[in-house]
Amino acid sequence: MGDSLTESRTEPAMPAPGGRLGTASRTPAGTPDGRGPIGTQRDGRPPPAEEHEAVTLLERARAEVDPVLRAALGTLPAPMRRVALYHFGWEQADGSPADGASGKAIRPALVLAAASALGGPEARAGAAAAAAAVELVHNFTLLHDDVMDRDATRRHRPTAWSVFGDADAILAGDALHALALRLLAEDPHPVARAAAARLADCVIELCAGQHADTALEGSVPGEVTLAEVLAMAEAKTGALLGSACAIGGLYAGASDDEVAALDAFGREAGLAFQLIDDIIGIWGDPRRTGKPVGADLAARKKSLPVVAAFVSGTPASAELAELYARPSEKEDLDHIAATVERAGGRDWAQIQAADRMARAMQQLARAVPDPEAAGGLLALAEFVTRRSS
Amino acid sequence: MGDSLTESRTEPAMPAPGGRLGTASRTPAGTPDGRGPIGTQRDGRPPPAEEHEAVTLLERARAEVDPVLRAALGTLPAPMRRVALYHFGWEQADGSPADGASGKAIRPALVLAAASALGGPEARAGAAAAAAAVELVHNFTLLHDDVMDRDATRRHRPTAWSVFGDADAILAGDALHALALRLLAEDPHPVARAAAARLADCVIELCAGQHADTALEGSVPGEVTLAEVLAMAEAKTGALLGSACAIGGLYAGASDDEVAALDAFGREAGLAFQLIDDIIGIWGDPRRTGKPVGADLAARKKSLPVVAAFVSGTPASAELAELYARPSEKEDLDHIAATVERAGGRDWAQIQAADRMARAMQQLARAVPDPEAAGGLLALAEFVTRRSS
Repeated sequence: MGDSLTESRTEPAMPAPGGRLGTASRTPAGTPDGRGPIGTQRDGRPPPAEEHEAVTLLERARAEVDPVLRAALGTLPAPMRRVALYHFGWEQADGSPADGASGKAIRPALVLAAASALGGPEARAGAAAAAAAVELVHNFTLLHDDVMDRDATRRHRPTAWSVFGDADAILAGDALHALALRLLAEDPHPVARAAAARLADCVIELCAGQHADTALEGSVPGEVTLAEVLAMAEAKTGALLGSACAIGGLYAGASDDEVAALDAFGREAGLAFQLIDDIIGIWGDPRRTGKPVGADLAARKKSLPVVAAFVSGTPASAELAELYARPSEKEDLDHIAATVERAGGRDWAQIQAADRMARAMQQLARAVPDPEAAGGLLALAEFVTRRSS
Repeated sequence: MGDSLTESRTEPAMPAPGGRLGTASRTPAGTPDGRGPIGTQRDGRPPPAEEHEAVTLLERARAEVDPVLRAALGTLPAPMRRVALYHFGWEQADGSPADGASGKAIRPALVLAAASALGGPEARAGAAAAAAAVELVHNFTLLHDDVMDRDATRRHRPTAWSVFGDADAILAGDALHALALRLLAEDPHPVARAAAARLADCVIELCAGQHADTALEGSVPGEVTLAEVLAMAEAKTGALLGSACAIGGLYAGASDDEVAALDAFGREAGLAFQLIDDIIGIWGDPRRTGKPVGADLAARKKSLPVVAAFVSGTPASAELAELYARPSEKEDLDHIAATVERAGGRDWAQIQAADRMARAMQQLARAVPDPEAAGGLLALAEFVTRRSS
């Protein structure tokens, strides 16, 4: 169900310099900044102001939410606590302390930024438990997804199931899910109930997204439509980013319209992220991604650019179908990547990503018309979609 | 995490006649009814009034809760809905209708009976969503437990994972879990938030119980203590029965003391049930249990009577240790059962079950002093612990 935002293909600790998405931007005045289209190599210039802002926002969110998370995890019975603390990167498998590669806290930062954007510091302070609940839900889905997908690595460490076994990873996920909803049930804020309902709905959508992902991977590439794979990505990646923003809005007393716009903002940004992540998965620099070149192609993954190439009806798409049907060999991968590109998969994904980001900006303007107030959400959206090729 | 109350070893559709637990009883005046100790063969007399009452209560609970459950399941995305409707016994694997072997609805019946006992018909009517939420949690844990335990059969049908695969069974479980908490988040009743917090806590305890169960099965029998196995049974079986009663009490506006007593009542009754279920697992009649003779012994299960036998320090316990260490062969099973009995495992379990049921009755009297009002809860407790040998 979870996406890979906390296990990004680029190094998460310090953002890479340069390159902002070529879409509406707070400064300078909503035009592309000319540092090249999505997915091009960075130029080594120092990071723009928004990037600094995003890093600051993420660090601040961690500082506000981590104590709530640690206190909540501390209430778990020992067996689930052990798995959870390992998964969060706060303990080694043997229970000794670890210095937390617990993800970038993008979702809690979105909750707090949305609350702050529409309700100021007071709303932000009131949303800490909700921000922690969103992060718990995200991590519950990661624990379960890793079991289902047999993924061996998460955040540069062995996945929980590969260390503790399937049963304990499933149980730890169930416990984090319950803990998330308990945090909201115990939250005295009057909107906590609405937030809980929204988060529960989101979990169900995440389940549908994970199901669709699994089903797509088992299907014949030529039979998958772009609509299907976009819907899957929205459910799997966009839904929780949207819910994070929407829940933040609830804590600011936002109107239904504002909450809906915040949800749409997060969803569109999530789709933009997924498109760019998929581009990097094919054409990314392995020194930056930490994955071997063309790992997604080697796994015959039906990522968004690949499906776009398949359905393009070009001569290259027929060639791609042949290549994808063959057993994977390392020397094929550059050729497959070039074929996806010739079939238009790379261009389509780049245009789609820019389009989704533009829509995200429109929704943000609808939800938070004041550009100053919207700055934090904008910076976070640009941060998650800023990826090197 | 779930226990086997909905997949009981006796036929669940119509309760067997005779035999009530030899403990405090509403009528006749709190003494054993003389129809033999727990676990003896029934005498074929018509069922007592409480048994009729329990069946009526269970049918009524089904009638009140099923519409809520069906409506809730109807909101799930198709892939999760399909697995859920199969698991509930309402659809075949191909999606065609099935006539629902969806369990006995003991937990929702307890929620409604507790609400009714302390708050009358109005409280009962207000607790329908909570009763459905409890049943959803129960079924979510069954779906996940079956994956972890690789159990192939549930309610006389192939388990969801064996039909739909692990991933879909895990996802359907996650979706039911979310649905349970959404029902409570959307419930306008003022106690819904407290009920949600309690249910979330219960899920965490169920997780701990399932973990302990898995860990116990992997341990050396002689190193397991009775305290450990009783704590496991309480977490795995007692916790949700207790929560069901406590949540019913919340909807009746019960005091903290009354809610605590209702919780303890359900826990003790749950432990009594588990003890009796374990007795039946060893000495039960396979024509009634639907399982081969000594299936628990063949699986070298560390059930409560077996652990009691192991720790008895008798010559028979040493003999049992040898027998349990040997590979299982059918001809051994009667001998193993006799050895457990000689080591005092059967007697201990019977006495414990009676003691737990007596404690349950004490807690019930504390929570609901009026015997007339307590009748429904008493009948349900006796129903779940009424098992033939």
